[in-house]
Amino acid sequence: MGNMFNTIEIKDGVITVLDQTRLPREEVYLEARTTEDVWDYIKRLVVRGATLIGVTAGYGMWLAMKEVLSGAQENRELEAEEIMVIDMAFREKAKYLDSARPTAVNLSYAVKRMLGRWERIMDSLVSDDPSCAVPYITPLEILDALFEEAQAIRDEDEYSSKKKGEYGMEILKPGMTILTHCNAGALASVGCGGILASVYMANEQGYGIKVYADETRPLLQGARLTAWELHKNNVDVTLICDNMASTVMKQGKIDAVIVGCDRMAANGDAANKIGTSGVAILAKEYGIPFYFSLPTSTIDMKTATGDDIEIEERDPDEVTEKWYAERMAPECINVYNPAFDVTDHKYITGIITEKGIVYPPYDVNLPKIMGVEE
Amino acid sequence: MGNMFNTIEIKDGVITVLDQTRLPREEVYLEARTTEDVWDYIKRLVVRGATLIGVTAGYGMWLAMKEVLSGAQENRELEAEEIMVIDMAFREKAKYLDSARPTAVNLSYAVKRMLGRWERIMDSLVSDDPSCAVPYITPLEILDALFEEAQAIRDEDEYSSKKKGEYGMEILKPGMTILTHCNAGALASVGCGGILASVYMANEQGYGIKVYADETRPLLQGARLTAWELHKNNVDVTLICDNMASTVMKQGKIDAVIVGCDRMAANGDAANKIGTSGVAILAKEYGIPFYFSLPTSTIDMKTATGDDIEIEERDPDEVTEKWYAERMAPECINVYNPAFDVTDHKYITGIITEKGIVYPPYDVNLPKIMGVEE
Repeated sequence: MGNMFNTIEIKDGVITVLDQTRLPREEVYLEARTTEDVWDYIKRLVVRGATLIGVTAGYGMWLAMKEVLSGAQENRELEAEEIMVIDMAFREKAKYLDSARPTAVNLSYAVKRMLGRWERIMDSLVSDDPSCAVPYITPLEILDALFEEAQAIRDEDEYSSKKKGEYGMEILKPGMTILTHCNAGALASVGCGGILASVYMANEQGYGIKVYADETRPLLQGARLTAWELHKNNVDVTLICDNMASTVMKQGKIDAVIVGCDRMAANGDAANKIGTSGVAILAKEYGIPFYFSLPTSTIDMKTATGDDIEIEERDPDEVTEKWYAERMAPECINVYNPAFDVTDHKYITGIITEKGIVYPPYDVNLPKIMGVEE
Repeated sequence: MGNMFNTIEIKDGVITVLDQTRLPREEVYLEARTTEDVWDYIKRLVVRGATLIGVTAGYGMWLAMKEVLSGAQENRELEAEEIMVIDMAFREKAKYLDSARPTAVNLSYAVKRMLGRWERIMDSLVSDDPSCAVPYITPLEILDALFEEAQAIRDEDEYSSKKKGEYGMEILKPGMTILTHCNAGALASVGCGGILASVYMANEQGYGIKVYADETRPLLQGARLTAWELHKNNVDVTLICDNMASTVMKQGKIDAVIVGCDRMAANGDAANKIGTSGVAILAKEYGIPFYFSLPTSTIDMKTATGDDIEIEERDPDEVTEKWYAERMAPECINVYNPAFDVTDHKYITGIITEKGIVYPPYDVNLPKIMGVEE
């Protein structure tokens, strides 16, 4: 399965991302040369999708450190006082990057993980025993370590995408039709297809899986991204408006629903693109299995339930103006534009992860797969 | 309550309609000078909304007869053979008009009713007793009779809108917030507000009812029309994308759902704008009452259940291109674009009609209100 596109690529130290706001019209790649670029690309959804945001933020943190160290000669051994200044500046940039979007846990996961690597570097420089000499480190060594960490996040996403694809195949049978909402496919990851990996793998084996894609208002990720990548990978895709899901389910056209996730709480409640909870309720009503597919890095065991997940509200213009040739609603009315909603765990048939499929009861089985003692 | 707009007006024999495809950007009125104009306006949704389609079709039938009689001097008494020719031509035009859209019963209701009036005119010309002289009729008399019938359809819609408004007030309490889908308000009728009449009436009495309007993809009648007329009538309206209904319901923001209807079957199953069935299922899940509001002319006792209702499929471009500054989906993908769906009667809390609110069991109570013996 060749995706024929790279969502993110690092070449000669330059981060290049596919501008997903311009799809499906044109395939444009943008360079991220500053932390501000990375923040802006995440904020504006140039890069989007939970795990791709995480991967991008990982490299963004490496870029941030590069900026912090820009004045220093790369092979010079740094003084302890310099390290303190670097630490403060790096934390400042981490906080800034983390502020780009609130809901997807992968952003803060990646930022925290990169900070963690930095803290381990600092720890290695300091010893509790005052008689120990403080070892030195160079800017180049710091950057190499952080780049390695960012690469690890990227590689784990790729691995996780593949494993999720393999486990996800357990629920697919030849001739099935899947409904999905938003885009959590190859465009939302660096891997072999995100939640659509199973579909791509199954079709390579001749399953002939078809997909219905909710267009996913207001930003149309289903129409612009999911339909685009499925078509590009020769999957039979049918685009519908979000409000048509009930009808195609009632007509018996849908065998299962699979969607991605931006943050899953410890009890299985899951924040994902606005509209997901509605699709889940419809699936339950029509007796259709409903699956989330996510890497375990998206499961936030520190968030007890969906009520504790912050939901990003975005610009009303996304609903009334964006994309349109003219404004589509009268001026001066209220517009509510939450970017996500929370699907109650009671509607979830199973959770496809890189460690296997988790079934209810989630308050028991999620801690188990996460290796957390209750 | 002044709507400050006329959805349809007849002045000096000219039919003028508000072009609803141009709202909310501009208030443009178009003249319908031929049967083809009327067909085209209904097809293209220049006029839309079940009862307004019915009213427009009534006048359209009058216009059709005007065309059939265009060669004849208006005060000349017509020969029996001429009547036969007129009858054939008129039926041809009736069939044509009826073909504009299949789902809303009010179109075929109005066409049939105008044909019925014409048949009564013909009956009055013919007697079973061959000794009776055949009375004569002039083109002017025919047109006057048909115009009177069209006016009656119009007046009944206005009356029905008012009565539905009054009965609908039974379910409203001060401070309530209503969710509606598509537009079945004043723009969908000639009356004082269609299904929104209750809201307008209640707010005149200081109820302060607020409304959430689903934007209603693909043609955005909620964003363009419902938000426009509510705002114009000083109602606090909040626009949401269709897929946000689940979230606002979960947040406790919605006290009741009220929607219009294009055709209700004898068992209460109801065809309405695509997405309605999904809203009904969500309302049931969240314990929110869900009402249809419709004139009894929308109840089709000859249609046993929702399975017998033909669902119009419209142009895929409505999903992928219409309104947009650029195409929003890749080329060469499948698009499914049903204009309506059927809400199962089991999700309906009550049906607001001009004769009162009908409650379950609908297979008993609908025939009762329709005066039909079982």
